[in-house]
Formats: sequence, structure tokens, C-alpha cells
Amino acid sequence: MPIDVIRVDDPADPRLADFVGLTDVALRRRREPEEGMFLAEGEKVVLRAVAAGFRPRAAFLEERWLPGLADALAAAGAPAYVAAPEVLEQVTGYVVHRGALVAMERRPLPEPAELLASSRRLAVLEDVVDHTNLGAVFRSAAALGVDGVLLTPRCADPLYRRSVKVSMGAVFSVPYARAASWPECFDEVTGAGFRLLALTPAPDAVALPDLVPAERDALLLGTEGDGLSARALAAADLRVQIPMEGGIDSLNVAAAAAVAFYALRYAVRQ
Amino acid sequence: MPIDVIRVDDPADPRLADFVGLTDVALRRRREPEEGMFLAEGEKVVLRAVAAGFRPRAAFLEERWLPGLADALAAAGAPAYVAAPEVLEQVTGYVVHRGALVAMERRPLPEPAELLASSRRLAVLEDVVDHTNLGAVFRSAAALGVDGVLLTPRCADPLYRRSVKVSMGAVFSVPYARAASWPECFDEVTGAGFRLLALTPAPDAVALPDLVPAERDALLLGTEGDGLSARALAAADLRVQIPMEGGIDSLNVAAAAAVAFYALRYAVRQ
Repeated sequence: MPIDVIRVDDPADPRLADFVGLTDVALRRRREPEEGMFLAEGEKVVLRAVAAGFRPRAAFLEERWLPGLADALAAAGAPAYVAAPEVLEQVTGYVVHRGALVAMERRPLPEPAELLASSRRLAVLEDVVDHTNLGAVFRSAAALGVDGVLLTPRCADPLYRRSVKVSMGAVFSVPYARAASWPECFDEVTGAGFRLLALTPAPDAVALPDLVPAERDALLLGTEGDGLSARALAAADLRVQIPMEGGIDSLNVAAAAAVAFYALRYAVRQ
Repeated sequence: MPIDVIRVDDPADPRLADFVGLTDVALRRRREPEEGMFLAEGEKVVLRAVAAGFRPRAAFLEERWLPGLADALAAAGAPAYVAAPEVLEQVTGYVVHRGALVAMERRPLPEPAELLASSRRLAVLEDVVDHTNLGAVFRSAAALGVDGVLLTPRCADPLYRRSVKVSMGAVFSVPYARAASWPECFDEVTGAGFRLLALTPAPDAVALPDLVPAERDALLLGTEGDGLSARALAAADLRVQIPMEGGIDSLNVAAAAAVAFYALRYAVRQ
């Protein structure tokens, strides 16, 4: 199928609707799920989304990025709106350093039960609302052998542009599901045979280096500010802490996740 | 000493010079070291800087943050410029969520030789230019038992506002030095009796879980984009990799640092 290349120079062109106002986080967070789309930015991330089976529906890019994306767009029958960098900036609201944006179709998420059945090591994220942290957790999960991610209802959207970018595309490859209700979702995890581990800075929790991995572990991670809720801590089978020094009482949630994923996968105390 | 409280409503007030144009990264990166100052933002971070012995030279804040900072400012004889949130925004260029900025005096950094002599576990950062990553590495270093950080000449400034904030003040408590020359600094590290470990995604490097810590280890971390330079890799005694799966070839440098610091401090393979 030949690719449909359309040159645009009017930032108000209605065919660019998918790409308008990308710096308005509140708007995009509402619109993108409603419209069943998300945005992948930069050739590498776009090609990872396509490789993971996501379907492009339109591209908005500088001419020089067309060759690398042409096959993927042609295969999906997606039009390529080619424009100058200034037009990209006017439409999106920012300087598109990576020069290419592709609007992709969302796919239905698996049910939590399905995710639980197919995972051995699981991350359960409670109300992680920061897109950067969420993306970083997915990147570490993919690298360090976590099979799936369960999100509580209030977690941010892994397919939001910033999460996608920070995850380096890991949000496409690590299966995830969104729980329908909180805190009932925790019982669902333990009911599926997981040991539910709550990562907490509490000094009386089991030290991570002393933790012996179980057959099926689910690692519960909370928000940066408040940490895990009392309900999450109560639902856990075991509370686990990363030993810390230097008067520091917590790590960034993405750093803590990476350390805990690594420990579950590879390591015990010397 | 009573505190000198000055109410300001003119954003052009010349006494606010320390706080002008904070969103102009290029300007601030030049000005702050030249003028021997840096900015701490928010009560918690300011008090950590003061606790670490840094001296406030002026505060620019909303009224409601004055009580928590008054003692620290009074002890240093630093004036408090009190203003409405709109004035803070006009001067700084952004909405100051934490409501309080304090300009602090820099102190001379230790010489690398001094840092090397007083450290057992060291992080050596090669050209880490991203302030967020730099701050996150310091936070993990403080929490996970790294005694000092050596920066190559091109690394970003740990006292830049964003680094300070992301580090949660760890840039005040973890000693660091800046090497005068690259790549000679690597020889200085090994000359001081450290085993120099290069963290790399190279699959033929020693797997981190198999690494047995030495008496004195220096962990060499590179930039996100290109990783360590060939010179850094050549200077290292040993190349070490975090084993990765899922088609992911690297972690974010802050996540990789946290995992490696943890492994050096606590863990070997199961």
C-alpha cells in the first residue's frame, strides 16, 4: 500500500486534531482515552509500539523522519502529515525534538484476573500519578524480569506521552491491567496465589536483602508523597524495606522499584 | 538577632537579583557558580542545607513560610523578602509551589584527593549533564551507603535548583569533588587504591549479581545517551552489567545507579 503523504502548513488544519495542544496535560489525559488513542514520539518508540502490535492511525512529522516510518505507516494505511518544525511547534505547543509524532490506536487492556494468571513476578502500583515515575517503573520492570503490572484505579495512564517516552516503550511490552476497585484489588492478588509484599520505609519491616523470594511475588509500591495507604499495608502479607542510611528516609519510587525488582530477581544478603 | 523582614511588591526591586529568571537554565548555570551562590527551594530542603552548614544570604518567600525559616535566617543575618505569590512568579518566571526560595552561599569543594582518601564506596559520574538524574543519583548514594561522588569536569552542578530538589537535599550531605581533568581523573581514582568498576550494558561484562565487593570500590556511571566513553571503559579495572531482559538494553542512569549501589552494599546472587 503506498503511503499517503500530506504536506501541511496551516496549524489550524482540522486533520491535525490528534496532535493539538499536547502541553495541556489535563486536556490530553481526558481526550486520549476517550478517543481511544495515544501518542508515540520519536522513531524508536513508534517502531517499538508497532512491533508490539499497536496500529498507527496518523503521523505528524518533519520530512526527514518519513523514510524510517514509511513502512509502518503504509502497512496501517495511516496518513503522514508532513510539516516544518515551526508548524509542529505551533500545533503541539512545544518543540518536538524527536521530530515525529504518531497517533496510535489503543487496545483493550487485559482483565486483572488474566494478568494475574499469566504472571509470576508482579508489580502492583497504588495511586502512582506521576507520568515520569510510572514510565520509569515500567522500564525497570521490563529490564528486571517483572511479568506484569497491576494499576489501582487512580494510577496515571501508562500510554500518556511522557510515560511512553520515559519507559522507552516498555509500556508496550510489559502487560498491565487496571483494577476496577480499590482496596478489593489487593485481595484479588493474594487470592490468585501471590505473596503480597508492601515496600515501605518502616524500619521494622523485613530488610530487602533478607527477603527470600517466593514462587509468586507481587510487589506493592505507593506514591512518592504519602507512600502506601494503611489499607494497602494491612492487605500485604509482608512489609519490606530497603535499608537506608545518611538520614534519607526514602528513595524516589522509580529508584526503589528498580532496587526491589533487582533484589527479587537476583539477590540476597551477602 | 532579629530577622530583617522586607515586604516587596515590585518585581523589579534590585534586591531580588538572586531570584531573577530562574527558568533560564543557561543563565543560572553561569551566574550561580560565578556569584558563589545557589538556591534552595521549600522549607524542608532549606533546613537541610542549613543543617549541613550552608549559610543563607537572602530569602524570597510568601509570608506563611516565614515562621518555619525565621530562626535559620536570623542566625545568618539574612534578609527575608516577603511577597505575594504573583510577585514570586513574576520575578522567578514560574509558580513557586513550595512558596520559599533561599539563596545560599556556596562553599569550596574538597579536592578530589581529599574525597578519595575519606571514601570507601565511591560513585564516579562521567558527564552526567541532566540535573534530574544527577539529583536522583545523589539521593540514592546517600541512602545506599556511597560515601562520596567524584564528578568529571563536564558534569552538571549538583547545587543547581533542580538537582537540589530531586536529591531531597542529599547534595548537601554526600561529599563530592570535581575532577580537574578528564580522563586523568580515572588514574587518580585507581591510584588511590580503588577498584574502578564501569557500569555498562555490554553483555560480556561481569553480571552485577556475581560481583564480589572489594575493600574500596568506585562505580563509574556514564551519561544516559552514550553511556561511558571508550576512555572510561579502558581505564576501568572491571566492567559490570546489570542483567536485563525484555529487549530493554539499559536502565535510566538513576535507576541503574540505585541498583548498583544496593548491590555493592548488600547483595550477591542467590
